[in-house]
Amino acid sequence: MNTWLSALQAQLPSEQVLTELADRYSYSFDASFGEYLPEVVVQVKNKEEVVRVVKIANTYEVPIYPRGQGTCLSGGPLPVHGGIVLDMSQWPEQIEMHAEDLTVTVSPSVLTANINKAAEEHGLMYAPDPSSAHVATIGGNLAENSGGPRGLKYGVTKDFVLGLEVVTPEGEVIKTGGQTIKNVTGIDLTKLLVGSEGTLGVITEATLKLVPKPPAVQTIMAVFDDVRKAGTAISKTLTSGILPSKMEFMDQACIKAVENFQPAGLPIDAAAIVIIELDGHPETLAIEKQLVQSIMEDIGARETVLPDSEEAAARIWHARKQVSPAIAKIKPTKVSEDATVPRSKIPDMMDRLHDIKEKYKVEVVVFGHAGDGNLHPNVLCDKRDQEEMKRVEDAVEEIFQAAIELGGTLSGEHGIGTMKAPFMEQELGEVGLMMMKRIKDAWDPKGIMNPGKIFPEKGQKLVLRNE
Amino acid sequence: MNTWLSALQAQLPSEQVLTELADRYSYSFDASFGEYLPEVVVQVKNKEEVVRVVKIANTYEVPIYPRGQGTCLSGGPLPVHGGIVLDMSQWPEQIEMHAEDLTVTVSPSVLTANINKAAEEHGLMYAPDPSSAHVATIGGNLAENSGGPRGLKYGVTKDFVLGLEVVTPEGEVIKTGGQTIKNVTGIDLTKLLVGSEGTLGVITEATLKLVPKPPAVQTIMAVFDDVRKAGTAISKTLTSGILPSKMEFMDQACIKAVENFQPAGLPIDAAAIVIIELDGHPETLAIEKQLVQSIMEDIGARETVLPDSEEAAARIWHARKQVSPAIAKIKPTKVSEDATVPRSKIPDMMDRLHDIKEKYKVEVVVFGHAGDGNLHPNVLCDKRDQEEMKRVEDAVEEIFQAAIELGGTLSGEHGIGTMKAPFMEQELGEVGLMMMKRIKDAWDPKGIMNPGKIFPEKGQKLVLRNE
Repeated sequence: MNTWLSALQAQLPSEQVLTELADRYSYSFDASFGEYLPEVVVQVKNKEEVVRVVKIANTYEVPIYPRGQGTCLSGGPLPVHGGIVLDMSQWPEQIEMHAEDLTVTVSPSVLTANINKAAEEHGLMYAPDPSSAHVATIGGNLAENSGGPRGLKYGVTKDFVLGLEVVTPEGEVIKTGGQTIKNVTGIDLTKLLVGSEGTLGVITEATLKLVPKPPAVQTIMAVFDDVRKAGTAISKTLTSGILPSKMEFMDQACIKAVENFQPAGLPIDAAAIVIIELDGHPETLAIEKQLVQSIMEDIGARETVLPDSEEAAARIWHARKQVSPAIAKIKPTKVSEDATVPRSKIPDMMDRLHDIKEKYKVEVVVFGHAGDGNLHPNVLCDKRDQEEMKRVEDAVEEIFQAAIELGGTLSGEHGIGTMKAPFMEQELGEVGLMMMKRIKDAWDPKGIMNPGKIFPEKGQKLVLRNE
Repeated sequence: MNTWLSALQAQLPSEQVLTELADRYSYSFDASFGEYLPEVVVQVKNKEEVVRVVKIANTYEVPIYPRGQGTCLSGGPLPVHGGIVLDMSQWPEQIEMHAEDLTVTVSPSVLTANINKAAEEHGLMYAPDPSSAHVATIGGNLAENSGGPRGLKYGVTKDFVLGLEVVTPEGEVIKTGGQTIKNVTGIDLTKLLVGSEGTLGVITEATLKLVPKPPAVQTIMAVFDDVRKAGTAISKTLTSGILPSKMEFMDQACIKAVENFQPAGLPIDAAAIVIIELDGHPETLAIEKQLVQSIMEDIGARETVLPDSEEAAARIWHARKQVSPAIAKIKPTKVSEDATVPRSKIPDMMDRLHDIKEKYKVEVVVFGHAGDGNLHPNVLCDKRDQEEMKRVEDAVEEIFQAAIELGGTLSGEHGIGTMKAPFMEQELGEVGLMMMKRIKDAWDPKGIMNPGKIFPEKGQKLVLRNE
């Protein structure tokens, strides 16, 4: 038995150190691509245990991969170089509400939806709402800087983090930021760590900002016979003085998939639908909903639907949440992308996606947070079909290129992980990437903290095929 | 003549390289404390000139200090180790509006208020509104992550930055972030650089987010006979489901100072006033203003004033803006602090400030952005009086300690600069500060970029006395 494994076993309760193949296999994949077997899984339950594990990893130079519920779509928790998976999901959920400060302090293991639930009891809201909020941990959301529909009005995870407790790659505990809304005390380590995908340390506690929960919401569904017009209507709404809380897009393939999976009464003959949520005071909503309706209709929506009850509105939003599971039924494999463009470029990006689909003869469905230019083109395929997967790789690469050419970015909310690392230099340039890497090297000189993520390895390419 | 100076003169138009004592003296101070004479001032007008200057500074290891209009309250642009002041204020103002994307791209020299003015022409708003917006550059705002009253609802400068162009300490040009609302492509260099006080590079361009301009605003002034009650009313409002755009506090000393300076009809017998601005649709404001009024009165405001015209509202806000110049008339020297606490701790902080004032027999006036816990205690004194200044130093130190003890931070929006550097370890701990320093050293291995800021020098203490 190797020395570092003995050290782990000596310093942690034996039932928290998993070495059986079956256990290790359960931690070899996430919701993206690839399988990598770790040598050990350690289930930590508090900060002191994290410190112990990280110190051992640092001493023996063993790679260590923090992991929440493993719902990542970009490979963040994959143990690509073997070593230790640091499973945070067994850490007891701690939610400490400070309603009078409009803040909450949480353990990394808390499911994101539970934070919002706790906030609602005080008339408050934790706004970031990734679609996986019910199954994903805040720790994972922090590592990846997760988004969600409400990002349009309220911002993403990073915009709600005031302070962190972090175990550095050398096993030291630091606090960043704090409990105040404003803080300019030195270089902003809080926002540096959020979204660093576990490459700079392990987050063991976070203090999050809350906002007053809006007293009312209003859903509007606009139905279009032309995808481009839907894109134009989205841009037009956002420059009309209205900031909806959500503005989601689904193309015909998504609509059909949902109706086949769990019928919700969506118009299957439509080219696209745009689902909007307004929030605020009821009086404001009464005015804003009319404005939005008239914009949608002026641009060419064939119909706008205002659900007549909370249940009817909930059905529409449930249908939107069913897109991912529904399209997963169409073909065995789904490559979820989140290339993001400036808002006015949404119609152009839709054209480019159409062309890519034709060129590579791949099945592409499109949905997403169109209000902030964050589309989710999903390529549906079968990973057992090597020839098809080669075309998928080429199509995905061209999707990234299209986004960058339109002034956009590789990833709006899923992260870089392993999948997009090969394209980093294309977006950032050689020096830009090097300046990022300097931070990584300064914080983690031995390179043990979640290696193989964000930074491309020599000659690394996008590979979706099994090899 | 030294070699690096010759190199500068060879590579830049001679009228942009200032070596006369009178010119250098003009750049030896800012709006904080201390005078330090640079060896040269270089007035750059474009990115290429910045690159040339930085490369020379890097080659010859000469300190370089980026500077906008020099309105900094924490010593950010002070050339504390001599060398080159990089004056960005002569760079022609460039404002490139992308209304359909809700973004704007600007040169570092643009006065912040001009960005908002340009946005308003398109029905949009650049929300950050430091009180110095009419005289300070966006470059300085970016370096210091400036706040302002509207930070309460909309956030501070950092929350509005999507992308930057930056010249690194080695003279390389990198782009960070971009033009999209969402971006999780690697480690977040954009938010790292904003607020890094010019210690990591020179910002040569920024792309900023805009939001729809709210259709209406409503001002409310609440008058209190008890400072603590004013603090409680602020906390209570923020947990009532209302998020005002601004929520400002002025104590009696500030009220009197303003009325002596430029009478505005404020109640000089009041212990404190709270000035609130609500923004949104007129229908919402009609409801919210009643709610706010009844909260203020329930907690014990003796009166709430609703200005009956835009002009009357503007007079109140003008009075608020006059606080800084007005209190500067009371005594020759003013030490402006911005220690910030969690919102619920505002009443406690007010008590602590009262005690400190008594203990050190110093004149302290308090105003500020109370809605986000960001008070501005100002110590009024005379810097020629060495004995008084010693007491002021002790009082300021105790203000910092009080903020930290109440779960707050050294600086909410003014930055660390030279003045607060000695207190950094107290807030961050030794390791926390070291992890910050590692980033500085990785990016600027020769330590030429704005040295003497943020990071305390060996044995450095707060000194407000002339020595």
